[in-house]
Amino acid sequence: MPPFPTAPDKHALERGEILAPKFDANGLICAVTTHAQSGEVLMVGWMNAEALQATLDTGDVHYFSRSRGELWRKGDTSGQVQKVVEIRIDCDQDAVWVKCLPQGDGGACHVGFRSCFYRVVEDGKLVERP
Amino acid sequence: MPPFPTAPDKHALERGEILAPKFDANGLICAVTTHAQSGEVLMVGWMNAEALQATLDTGDVHYFSRSRGELWRKGDTSGQVQKVVEIRIDCDQDAVWVKCLPQGDGGACHVGFRSCFYRVVEDGKLVERP
Repeated sequence: MPPFPTAPDKHALERGEILAPKFDANGLICAVTTHAQSGEVLMVGWMNAEALQATLDTGDVHYFSRSRGELWRKGDTSGQVQKVVEIRIDCDQDAVWVKCLPQGDGGACHVGFRSCFYRVVEDGKLVERP
Repeated sequence: MPPFPTAPDKHALERGEILAPKFDANGLICAVTTHAQSGEVLMVGWMNAEALQATLDTGDVHYFSRSRGELWRKGDTSGQVQKVVEIRIDCDQDAVWVKCLPQGDGGACHVGFRSCFYRVVEDGKLVERP
């Protein structure tokens, strides 16, 4: 596992220049992926330390599949490789925001929509509005 | 607790019109909040069923504070109330995307930045770039 450090204190965590991601009890951090041009939220995934390091090292977004229990380079089977444009981390370093350019058909969702968020909640019901 | 149903099958989960959020083992669902006008990701928070229902009912974004263990209407102390413009849910209904208009000073982050994602990862280091 790549050796990400732990921030020594709150100031280092919030204002420091050391990347010190806080993984949860399962060793995961939440990753929000948006389209670098449209700004649309494409998906929410999970990264373990290995996935985050692989994303930083290769410039292709990697996730950890909770269902399959394995590291996963997005697009390996679908062609929807996500090229990293920018990675940000939040104040308490327990979430990352990845701006990317999706390759292949330009989509991100296995159901066939561009974004996984193709449904709006309206009056308590879901309406497809890609 | 509000009675959100469980989707009976994969098709209902992915293509149905019934809101059937999948909360995790801690009863939480990930919520990504963006600025409805700029598209900027403001924060990532967590909602339990009560917080999601309160958000749908009131039009103000509610979260569940994992550190304090309580329902939390964003902005109650900071004035940074988040007015809901649209709520979307993803394909497997385990994440929501909330587009909002932040009130008060227009920010969302307790550190003082507009967005919690005020740091970019560059060459393995964090650089503040609000």
